[in-house]
Amino acid sequence: MDTVSETANDSKLSVRYYGEKTESLGDAVLHLTAVEISLDVDADRDGVVEKNNPNKGSWKWGPNGHGAVLLVNCDSETTYKKTLDSEVDEINKVSGDTLLNLFLLPEHKLLKLFLKDYIMVVGTDTLTEEVPYLGGKTELAFFVEGLRFPDKDFDGLVTINLSLLEPCGKGFPETPIFTDTVVFHISPWIMTPNTLKPVEVYVCSTNDNYTFLKSIKNLVDKCGYKLKICYEYMNRGDRWMQDELEFGYIDSPHHQFPVVLDSPRDGDLQDFPYESILGPDFGYVTRNALNEKVSSLDSFGNLEVSPPVTVNGKSYPLGRIIIGVAATRGRNMTQVVQDFLWAQKVQEPIALYSDWLVVGHVDEFMTFVPAPDRKKFRLLLASPDAGYKVFKSLQKKGHGEAEMFPGLPEVISVNEILSDKKLQAENRYVQNCIDWNRDVLKKELGLDDEDIIDLPILFKVLEEKTGPRAVAYYPDMVNMIVLGDQLGIPKPFGPKVNGRCALETEVCSLLEPLGLKCTFIDDFAPYHKLLGEVHCGSNVLRERSPFRWWNLEL
Amino acid sequence: MDTVSETANDSKLSVRYYGEKTESLGDAVLHLTAVEISLDVDADRDGVVEKNNPNKGSWKWGPNGHGAVLLVNCDSETTYKKTLDSEVDEINKVSGDTLLNLFLLPEHKLLKLFLKDYIMVVGTDTLTEEVPYLGGKTELAFFVEGLRFPDKDFDGLVTINLSLLEPCGKGFPETPIFTDTVVFHISPWIMTPNTLKPVEVYVCSTNDNYTFLKSIKNLVDKCGYKLKICYEYMNRGDRWMQDELEFGYIDSPHHQFPVVLDSPRDGDLQDFPYESILGPDFGYVTRNALNEKVSSLDSFGNLEVSPPVTVNGKSYPLGRIIIGVAATRGRNMTQVVQDFLWAQKVQEPIALYSDWLVVGHVDEFMTFVPAPDRKKFRLLLASPDAGYKVFKSLQKKGHGEAEMFPGLPEVISVNEILSDKKLQAENRYVQNCIDWNRDVLKKELGLDDEDIIDLPILFKVLEEKTGPRAVAYYPDMVNMIVLGDQLGIPKPFGPKVNGRCALETEVCSLLEPLGLKCTFIDDFAPYHKLLGEVHCGSNVLRERSPFRWWNLEL
Repeated sequence: MDTVSETANDSKLSVRYYGEKTESLGDAVLHLTAVEISLDVDADRDGVVEKNNPNKGSWKWGPNGHGAVLLVNCDSETTYKKTLDSEVDEINKVSGDTLLNLFLLPEHKLLKLFLKDYIMVVGTDTLTEEVPYLGGKTELAFFVEGLRFPDKDFDGLVTINLSLLEPCGKGFPETPIFTDTVVFHISPWIMTPNTLKPVEVYVCSTNDNYTFLKSIKNLVDKCGYKLKICYEYMNRGDRWMQDELEFGYIDSPHHQFPVVLDSPRDGDLQDFPYESILGPDFGYVTRNALNEKVSSLDSFGNLEVSPPVTVNGKSYPLGRIIIGVAATRGRNMTQVVQDFLWAQKVQEPIALYSDWLVVGHVDEFMTFVPAPDRKKFRLLLASPDAGYKVFKSLQKKGHGEAEMFPGLPEVISVNEILSDKKLQAENRYVQNCIDWNRDVLKKELGLDDEDIIDLPILFKVLEEKTGPRAVAYYPDMVNMIVLGDQLGIPKPFGPKVNGRCALETEVCSLLEPLGLKCTFIDDFAPYHKLLGEVHCGSNVLRERSPFRWWNLEL
Repeated sequence: MDTVSETANDSKLSVRYYGEKTESLGDAVLHLTAVEISLDVDADRDGVVEKNNPNKGSWKWGPNGHGAVLLVNCDSETTYKKTLDSEVDEINKVSGDTLLNLFLLPEHKLLKLFLKDYIMVVGTDTLTEEVPYLGGKTELAFFVEGLRFPDKDFDGLVTINLSLLEPCGKGFPETPIFTDTVVFHISPWIMTPNTLKPVEVYVCSTNDNYTFLKSIKNLVDKCGYKLKICYEYMNRGDRWMQDELEFGYIDSPHHQFPVVLDSPRDGDLQDFPYESILGPDFGYVTRNALNEKVSSLDSFGNLEVSPPVTVNGKSYPLGRIIIGVAATRGRNMTQVVQDFLWAQKVQEPIALYSDWLVVGHVDEFMTFVPAPDRKKFRLLLASPDAGYKVFKSLQKKGHGEAEMFPGLPEVISVNEILSDKKLQAENRYVQNCIDWNRDVLKKELGLDDEDIIDLPILFKVLEEKTGPRAVAYYPDMVNMIVLGDQLGIPKPFGPKVNGRCALETEVCSLLEPLGLKCTFIDDFAPYHKLLGEVHCGSNVLRERSPFRWWNLEL
């Protein structure tokens, strides 16, 4: 039969047969009903559901891959009722003396499928539903939404089945005679590197950061981005906007929106991501440390992502996630968050060693800035060696009496700094720790020395209960905010030569040749003294990458 | 330096330099110490640990793949102390003013690594240990054992790191300056299809199965295999040897042994796998259903494996696992067991529909037998259609009064059976259910109709509380034991023609052309009447496949 039946038994086949009993020829007519069933999705990833794609039942990565994409419905209506964000998937239903049965096995906690206005829902508590019978060549549109992000115990693939059931007579259950299956991959949560275009800058207003806030506002205004200020009623004095949340996004051929990952840190800013950021087309996801102690390494100043890189021929067009952990024993990022990050797969994480710092965040010793040449970015590293080089050069040029921290109570001369043997030993130790990370970053990001710029920064080491740990000696310039080619850098309060801070001069001479513009922002009292800097006190929502995650070759 | 130092600073480099202060040439000697560290494993899978394999830090499937293999230490000493079954992995340690640190991150619950006599252990509670310092070019042998099988939340890959730590002076922790990493893949648990050579046959002795036991013993003796009888003190009347356990094995280049998977069924046979099968080089693994109700579908008569197949060009050289589930709603195999089976990856499971049966096991309607031609096996399916064909042919040939169940109280004539309209309707329903599974098996195993043999078996349908479900009407011949080319088939007690059972004659005519020998075993009273047959009442330990799982292209 080459066409679907309009009514039951509307096709006929004449059969001539030899009757064994009558021992003569007989004629019979066979009545036929053609039923065509197809559960359809956008398996070719063009944003439109197509008819019965032969590849709809499997999922393959890459530009020549196939398989539909599903978003987790993790945003909210303004009324906090969940929206129907995911694309419509359609099945074609025809008339016939049959039943259709939609079912999910065994992944019923992973997605939800429903008809408009929730007439029928499959998922969560209901594994299976009969599809309402409409007759004819009707197409029935279903809505489907993901319920969980990929994680350690879930590879992101979900399946929906549709069975045609045949009645077997009174007293017997229907038996399935045909099953159609479609597969979705739920979009991973994807981070945005410093090289992507900013959209909005987030910062806290506190009772002591007015000047800082004004500097940030000036910079953001100059760049033409939006500034979002979190006020005290919400932040309750917690100024570490970088640490409470990380912006990312989810992406499908038909729709995409940003999703905030809420840190298990849960300082006084803890309600901000859920209360103020979650909204229509702005999703929210979090991971709670169940039986583990949350440490400073769980703050998202310790969660960054590299620009796109290629390493030994392997391409990471969405970059690689970077977190800080203990080298062998010590504080670590909570396992559930690590599991979540690794399970997203598309930005394979790198674990650096950050536990040598009091605060323990990777943003205290590294960042990425855009560049016009080479790999289109530079890795900036804090470097005590580079710091000493600047101070020694000042001394050599006769500026040994020039003063660090001019105008501040901490004032100290270049000569005094250079004669401090303890500080030297501490910075040798810090340089060792950073060099270890430098080696890992070179290897894991495929970088050459020419891709790295060392910024002159000194540290000092505090004797903590669990051992010695480092903090920045003067404002940690690498802990900057990157807004396109505009950099908001912690003002280092270095010794002045010819009226200009020698540390600022040095940093400008390193970065300006790349077309970058340096604005030095005074964060000394409200951030630096509290062991954070500009980056720790801000956050940037960026545009999504032009690269679509399903085009990765995994 | 082209060789490792024997003592600290045993190499020198002369340097001539221009002194800035003295403004004259100076000479200096740089003392060098060469340290070579390597954590070594059998990454080329030849059973021998090689020196610093460049691929030791990653894992790749296939004959051109690489990466070491680790076994879960799941067997026991006779004294029930764990043995050291896994292979030795070596590190080379040299002298020098350094420390070495072995660590596992974050997989400390996945493997255990130790020096002989447990001098030092890494794993479980200890994440990291310093390696005892021996000096010179010493090699240190470590023993390593897997602690967990691959599962839903564990892909089977485990990593061991070794770091060289550099002292940073008094008051500072050592910093890592070099880290070597090795990766293992823990062997999956692998099932053995009927086409593999038997080693031992397991069966229960009960107070009512003496004749059956004798028949099995005769058959096993004839084949030359070992018979293991589980006596009543252990089985407590539970005769379903097939249902309590499934035999499989784990495999590595250096060692392999069988491993019994203990079913969550837990009938009166529940202690048998642990008490009697677990032993030296015989491992044990189980999965407990935590919050789920265990159903009859959790018995391992509902867990089988196909012979090797190729499906649309994709090869399954270890076959595919087969389980029975509900079609849409109903009883199912416990999720934790399904998760375990899917996570082994090397025998990708197929879910059939078995919930239409009262007992609900796939072995009630299918099995595999070896064959000399085609795919080297045949799929045997229970077939009511084939059953009716035999009975109709008997009637036509004038044997309508021949009696089914001769000599038993259930005696009934061929004519009576054929005139039972209710039985016909029931068998139409059963045939529908089996046809559904036939379609799935053809598709998922890449079978043609010529690869399938339909055995003449009738069912009847019982009205259970949750709906109608089927049981075999006469002994279910497909529920057989397969021992090489010898088949132990439930004696069907069919109508006799010329002194021979017509059903046996039919089955022999179908199977003997394949070189198979049929022995019909009377299991009527002690098994069939209790809704099981020969296969349900026995189990076979088989040799491992000659194909090694790591050579799969996944």
